[in-house]
Amino acid sequence: MSRVSIIGAYNTRFGAFVERDPQTGEIRDTKSYYELLEEAGRGAIEDAGLAPEDIDGIWVGSCSPSLFVNQEHVAPLGLEVAPDALRFVPTTRTEGACASSSVALYNAVFAIESGRFRRVLVIGVEKMNLLPTREMTHVLACSSHWPTEGAKGVTFPGLFAEYAKGYRAHWHLSDETLRRMFAAVSALCYRNGIQNPLAHFGKGSPPDKYGLTTAEAILNLPESGKGGNPMIVPPLRLHDCSLVTDGAAAVVLAANTAAGSMCPRAVEIAGIGMATERLAENVRPNMHELMAGKRSVQRAFDEAGITIADVDLAEVHDCFTINQILSVEALGLSKDGRGGYDFMEGRFTPEDDCPVNLSGGLKSKGHPVGATGASMHALVYKQLIGEPIGLSPAKGTPEVGVVFNVGGSAVTNCTTVLRRIR
Amino acid sequence: MSRVSIIGAYNTRFGAFVERDPQTGEIRDTKSYYELLEEAGRGAIEDAGLAPEDIDGIWVGSCSPSLFVNQEHVAPLGLEVAPDALRFVPTTRTEGACASSSVALYNAVFAIESGRFRRVLVIGVEKMNLLPTREMTHVLACSSHWPTEGAKGVTFPGLFAEYAKGYRAHWHLSDETLRRMFAAVSALCYRNGIQNPLAHFGKGSPPDKYGLTTAEAILNLPESGKGGNPMIVPPLRLHDCSLVTDGAAAVVLAANTAAGSMCPRAVEIAGIGMATERLAENVRPNMHELMAGKRSVQRAFDEAGITIADVDLAEVHDCFTINQILSVEALGLSKDGRGGYDFMEGRFTPEDDCPVNLSGGLKSKGHPVGATGASMHALVYKQLIGEPIGLSPAKGTPEVGVVFNVGGSAVTNCTTVLRRIR
Repeated sequence: MSRVSIIGAYNTRFGAFVERDPQTGEIRDTKSYYELLEEAGRGAIEDAGLAPEDIDGIWVGSCSPSLFVNQEHVAPLGLEVAPDALRFVPTTRTEGACASSSVALYNAVFAIESGRFRRVLVIGVEKMNLLPTREMTHVLACSSHWPTEGAKGVTFPGLFAEYAKGYRAHWHLSDETLRRMFAAVSALCYRNGIQNPLAHFGKGSPPDKYGLTTAEAILNLPESGKGGNPMIVPPLRLHDCSLVTDGAAAVVLAANTAAGSMCPRAVEIAGIGMATERLAENVRPNMHELMAGKRSVQRAFDEAGITIADVDLAEVHDCFTINQILSVEALGLSKDGRGGYDFMEGRFTPEDDCPVNLSGGLKSKGHPVGATGASMHALVYKQLIGEPIGLSPAKGTPEVGVVFNVGGSAVTNCTTVLRRIR
Repeated sequence: MSRVSIIGAYNTRFGAFVERDPQTGEIRDTKSYYELLEEAGRGAIEDAGLAPEDIDGIWVGSCSPSLFVNQEHVAPLGLEVAPDALRFVPTTRTEGACASSSVALYNAVFAIESGRFRRVLVIGVEKMNLLPTREMTHVLACSSHWPTEGAKGVTFPGLFAEYAKGYRAHWHLSDETLRRMFAAVSALCYRNGIQNPLAHFGKGSPPDKYGLTTAEAILNLPESGKGGNPMIVPPLRLHDCSLVTDGAAAVVLAANTAAGSMCPRAVEIAGIGMATERLAENVRPNMHELMAGKRSVQRAFDEAGITIADVDLAEVHDCFTINQILSVEALGLSKDGRGGYDFMEGRFTPEDDCPVNLSGGLKSKGHPVGATGASMHALVYKQLIGEPIGLSPAKGTPEVGVVFNVGGSAVTNCTTVLRRIR
């Protein structure tokens, strides 16, 4: 067990916070990187019932702010959450692609466990929508192995298409079966997301408006045209891809001794597990399972002293539908090769023993890459203290929640076990 | 005192590792980001007398690899140091502008002190010379507060010119006095750097060839033309600015218990201190001292239980000559307002009680931004184990060395006290 608890959390609304100037066509901010970061930081401190003076360290996870908004060196922006109180506090920025803020959280855990810090703020933030799609795609491709992937024109849909193809081949699936599996995943995320007031694809969004809440509805979409489901990189289609989102989330961590009886809303970080895969896909021995992901899960479960049977809910990294399937297999919620069938058969809904992505996941809640890890932790924390944002599990108050956050093409793998204290 | 030691270190040669294609004019790599990172990592493990299997975590500090070489998500590249042994190891990238790899080292210290890691590798790396000057200047400007600085065309020479002007005004210095102070700083760095076999401006480089080893020689340079010393942003001239450099450095850290008697070359990390200034210069109360820097020094000295009188040598962050003066004042080597005079009067040479920048500093050794912190730690470590790279202090084997590394416009401040164990 770690010696650290989450004692407060905040998640901004996720969305595309930009507008197009009707005259010049220029894309303008309606909520900036700076505003998102500060809102999340302030919100988490307030949620923890602390004053900014109580915070003695800040970790900021962000993936590519220099490419998205010309801002590198973002850790010091954490001071702006409350400049009078926080000036001179130590700050760290971490980057681990889409796991940037889980990496931040883990380093913050180490820092508290070292005895050097008592209460720290961990913020995840990204602002992706100021760039046109083409440039945004380039930014994300920088998180691949550039010489063998990005530089060759391989995009992230392309990298995860390799996993989809590897999975299809290894388990001898037809294209049609694979497509049905993926549609089942998307439909579940859309159904859940519509209930999440903070989601990018929430109430009134396209999946709600066009009724994309069943696999059949998604399978019936036309191949092309407006409202269609075109192929992006075979076998991945538009509705297999997560969203390009602006947002931030934050948690406050405290040493268990500091959290203790003073924090009735403390949730302990019962176990963390991190495992890194080699960056280039072409050097990996297989492409049908999350090899490093499985190790990160094992490490976290061992530390927490649990098995998957103890887990009451999970937020997993569905950057693409294939990865949601691989993630439930990595966690052990599904046997290897069964994940897709399990989604098709209606598992992982709010009624399941272990619902997955009650938030709507990256597919529906949205995926502001550097914010995603912090957001997953924030929302599972909120579930565990009985203050869920959006859907809660049908089977009563959960006790153990798991976060499974992945950076890059299944490269930086972070698993956290959170456990309600009382 | 921290509970962590450095047990091995490596510094690649620093320089501009590019060539111009004579036909297309294109700039090409002669030593890539990837090669630099791997060379440093392997070198440090070997220097520590370890096998790669002994390493259980990797921290990589790098400032702007996505802008310099299109590569984000660089922590996993640490596995490539020895892929068979290191695959699945946890990895973290930190970014704190020019202090990126000191921030990496501090987070690695926390991780070891948490009891979760025994021996870890910390790599700092940057590859800056593939970009033309104009784009390189943009990259660095992203580490300023973009909305109020970079976006307004303010460059890093401009940001430190504000400190130079603040210092000049506060201490009522004439332009001529300030210029003489700066020339004394540059000349010392050039003299020292020529003796450093790894320096960007080493033997045979322009400062050596043109005899720029005295303040007078620098003061006598013409205002313009080839070989001149033109104004960059008043009052800072070309020879007040550090170099644009490619390079990497790495250290291996171990828990003191793991280092102990097994590592005769262990140097303890006696104290670390980190303090963050607000990112935008226009919100700081004064511009004639390193307010956060002084706090970071105090924290490190308090932890180590030393005063400046105990320090035998220092590597300080001379990204610009003004900052070398402010740094010796922040450390307490000079009284406030005396730093520039002390350089003019010949202090801080290898013969001094406390030599400064025996390596040649950022001005002469070079400044591959993300590598600089690791390099400062590596070279002070090497001094303290009696295996100096280049110059050593004239007064025998040093016992206590200090690193003072700054990120951004005096924003992320990192002070480390290293102490020889035997």
